[in-house]
Amino acid sequence: MAQGFKITPWEVEGKIDYEKIFKMFGVQKFDENIKQKLKRKTGDLHLLFRRNVVFAHRDFEKALEKGFFLYTGRGPSGPMHIGHIIPFYLTKWLQEKFKVNVYIELTDDEKFLEPKRKLSFEETQKWTEENILDIISVGFDPDRTFIFKDTEYIRNMYPLALKVAKVINFSTVRAIFGFTNQTSIGMIFFPTLQIVPTFFEDKICLVPSSIDQDPYFRLQRDVAERLHRQRCATIYHKLLPGLLGIDCKMSSSKPETCVYLDEGEESIREKIYKYAFSGGQPTLELHRKLGGNPEIDVCFQWLYLFFEDDDKRIEEIEEEYRSGRMSTGELKEIAIQKITEFIREHRKKREKARKKVEKFMYKGKLAKKMWETVFE
Amino acid sequence: MAQGFKITPWEVEGKIDYEKIFKMFGVQKFDENIKQKLKRKTGDLHLLFRRNVVFAHRDFEKALEKGFFLYTGRGPSGPMHIGHIIPFYLTKWLQEKFKVNVYIELTDDEKFLEPKRKLSFEETQKWTEENILDIISVGFDPDRTFIFKDTEYIRNMYPLALKVAKVINFSTVRAIFGFTNQTSIGMIFFPTLQIVPTFFEDKICLVPSSIDQDPYFRLQRDVAERLHRQRCATIYHKLLPGLLGIDCKMSSSKPETCVYLDEGEESIREKIYKYAFSGGQPTLELHRKLGGNPEIDVCFQWLYLFFEDDDKRIEEIEEEYRSGRMSTGELKEIAIQKITEFIREHRKKREKARKKVEKFMYKGKLAKKMWETVFE
Repeated sequence: MAQGFKITPWEVEGKIDYEKIFKMFGVQKFDENIKQKLKRKTGDLHLLFRRNVVFAHRDFEKALEKGFFLYTGRGPSGPMHIGHIIPFYLTKWLQEKFKVNVYIELTDDEKFLEPKRKLSFEETQKWTEENILDIISVGFDPDRTFIFKDTEYIRNMYPLALKVAKVINFSTVRAIFGFTNQTSIGMIFFPTLQIVPTFFEDKICLVPSSIDQDPYFRLQRDVAERLHRQRCATIYHKLLPGLLGIDCKMSSSKPETCVYLDEGEESIREKIYKYAFSGGQPTLELHRKLGGNPEIDVCFQWLYLFFEDDDKRIEEIEEEYRSGRMSTGELKEIAIQKITEFIREHRKKREKARKKVEKFMYKGKLAKKMWETVFE
Repeated sequence: MAQGFKITPWEVEGKIDYEKIFKMFGVQKFDENIKQKLKRKTGDLHLLFRRNVVFAHRDFEKALEKGFFLYTGRGPSGPMHIGHIIPFYLTKWLQEKFKVNVYIELTDDEKFLEPKRKLSFEETQKWTEENILDIISVGFDPDRTFIFKDTEYIRNMYPLALKVAKVINFSTVRAIFGFTNQTSIGMIFFPTLQIVPTFFEDKICLVPSSIDQDPYFRLQRDVAERLHRQRCATIYHKLLPGLLGIDCKMSSSKPETCVYLDEGEESIREKIYKYAFSGGQPTLELHRKLGGNPEIDVCFQWLYLFFEDDDKRIEEIEEEYRSGRMSTGELKEIAIQKITEFIREHRKKREKARKKVEKFMYKGKLAKKMWETVFE
C-alpha cells in the first residue's frame, strides 16, 4: 500500500488515485485525441467514453488501426450489481459499432480456488448460471458472441494453456500477483486461462475491463512476445463509487454499498435514501444558500457515470444542484427514477435471457465454431 | 544425492538401492506373506510377483481386502522400450485375476511441459498415438479399460482437479518434486492431473508403477485425507537394467541401453551381442573353470525379471551359466531368442491395435461411461 491504495485482481483497497495508476501500471491515458480518433470511426461516442469513465488503455490506437476482436469476463462469485455490468455495456457498444466477435469468459475455476471466497464448487456453478443471464440481458449479438465457463470450455483451451503456462514461472506470478509459497497450485496456474482467450483470433484482442485486471494483461503482453502472438490491447473504466461515498467501493457482499441487478424497487428507494452519500448541505436553508457538491454526491456521480445518457440533462442537473436550486431529495428522486427504470428494463430482458443461453453458449454461429475448435 | 542416488518422476540418477528406498519413501516391502495372500486370491502368481520384481507397496493388503480398481499411465515422450511395458503387463494380469477396471493415463501435458524434453506439442501428440498402440497390444479387456490423454480428457477431470489443486500449495510441491521459483506454472499444476484418476471410482485405487512415481502417490494420500476420499494403494516394480550393466538405466534416448518395442530382429541381435553386459569370464577356458555370474549378467537378468516365465527353465539356465557349462554366447542366444519372440508377438498384436483404439478410448463399455462422467 505504498501508494495509499492496493489493486490486484482479488483486492482493491484504499482510495484509487487514477493519476498514479498511469505511472504504477504503465498504462496510457485515454485522452481527447484518442476519443476523437474513435469518434471518427464510430460517428458518436458512448457515454462511458464521453464522460471519461474509460480513462486508460494499452495500445487502443493500434487496435483501432489494425482491427480487433473483443474479450471480457466475469468472476462468478455472487450476484451482480450495477457496477459489474458496466464493462459489458462498453463491450456491447463496441461490438455494435465495429461488428466484431465478443468472447465472454466466466472464471468459475478462479472463484472456486480463491481462498477468501470460501465458495463451494456448486455455488460457483449457480452464480455462473445467474451471472450469464445478467450478461445476456445486455444485448450482445448472439451470432457474434461466445459465452463460456472455464470448467466447461477447458478442453478447447488446454493445449494452448500449456503453451502459455510453459513460458511463465513461479517468480513471475509471485511478482505480478503477489502469490506466496502458501498459494494453491490451482491459483498459480489460473492466470494461464485468463490469458488464453486473448489468442482466440489472429487479430489484436481488445479487452474492456476494470483496472484491477491489468496484471493479467501485462503478463499477456510478455507471453505474447515469447509465443510470437499478438499482444492484447485494453481499455480500462473507472469503478462506479459505492453508495457510502465516492471513495468507497461497491461490493456484492455489502448490500449497503450497491444496487443489485435484481434489486426490488422499494429496496432501491430505501438504499438510496438511507445510504447514498450526499453532496448537499446539512439543512435545506443552507443548501439553497451554498449549493450542493456534485463531485462527492454519489447519486449525481451514478447519473453522470452511467445512468443519465443525455448530456444536456446531466449539465442541467449539475447546475441546478450546484446552485442549490435542486435539493438532495430531488436529486435522489431523479437517481431513483433512472436506476429503477434501468433495473426494470434489465429484469424484462433477463426474463427472456434464459431462452438465449443455448445460443450464446453452444448453438450461435460463433459458439458453434468455438466448440469445434481446439486451440493449440 | 545424499543416498548416492536420486529418484524423482523426471530423473533417476545413480545406482538405486532398493533397501534404502523403504526408509526414504516410507513404502512397505512386498514380502512372502503378502505374496501368499495374493496367491490365495488368484491361484497363481505372475512372474513379476514370483521373482520379486514387484518389491514394494503401499496398502496393498488393504486393497486386496476391500477391493480396488487399477490405474497406471505413461508419459508419451518417445518410443517405448521393453522396460516401459512391464507395469502394463502387471496391470493386465491383475485385471484378469480380479476382473476390475483399468484406467490408463497418457500425460501428454506433462511431457510437453517438462523443460529438458524440448518436445513440441505435435511431437507429444505423435508419441501419445504411438504409445497407445503399444499399450493396447498388452491385451487389456476393452470393456473394462479406459485409455485417455490429459489434453483430451481434461474437461471431465478439471472440476475435481480444482478441488485437488486447492489443497496443495507451492511449498508442498517444492518439497516433494523439487520445484523452484523457475519452474513453470504448468509443471507446478500438473501433479493435480496425475492424482485425479485415483478418485475415478469410490474404491481403493491400486497403482502398479515404477518407484520414481511414488512422490505423486505420497501426495495423493495427503490430498485424499483432506478431501475425505480414499487413499490410493501402490505396488512398485524394479526397473529392468539397461544393456550396459545392471546399475545402468534403460533410456529411450540412448539406443545402446535398451531394446525398443519395435526393434528389428537384426538390431536386437546386434545390440545384445555388442552392448549386453556379461557376467562371464574373459576367456571360454576361464569361463568353463570359474563359471559365469548371473547376478550381473544383463541377459540373465532380463530373462529372470521378465522374459523367461518358466521357473524350472530359469533355474536350469542359472545353474548352467553359474557352473560355466553354458557360455556367454549361449546365454545371449537364449536371450535373443526370447526377446525376439516377445517383440515379434508384440508387433503382431500392435498391427491389430490400431483398430482397437476407438474402443479403448471412446466406445468401449467403460470408455463410454467415462466420457459421460464429469468428476467433481
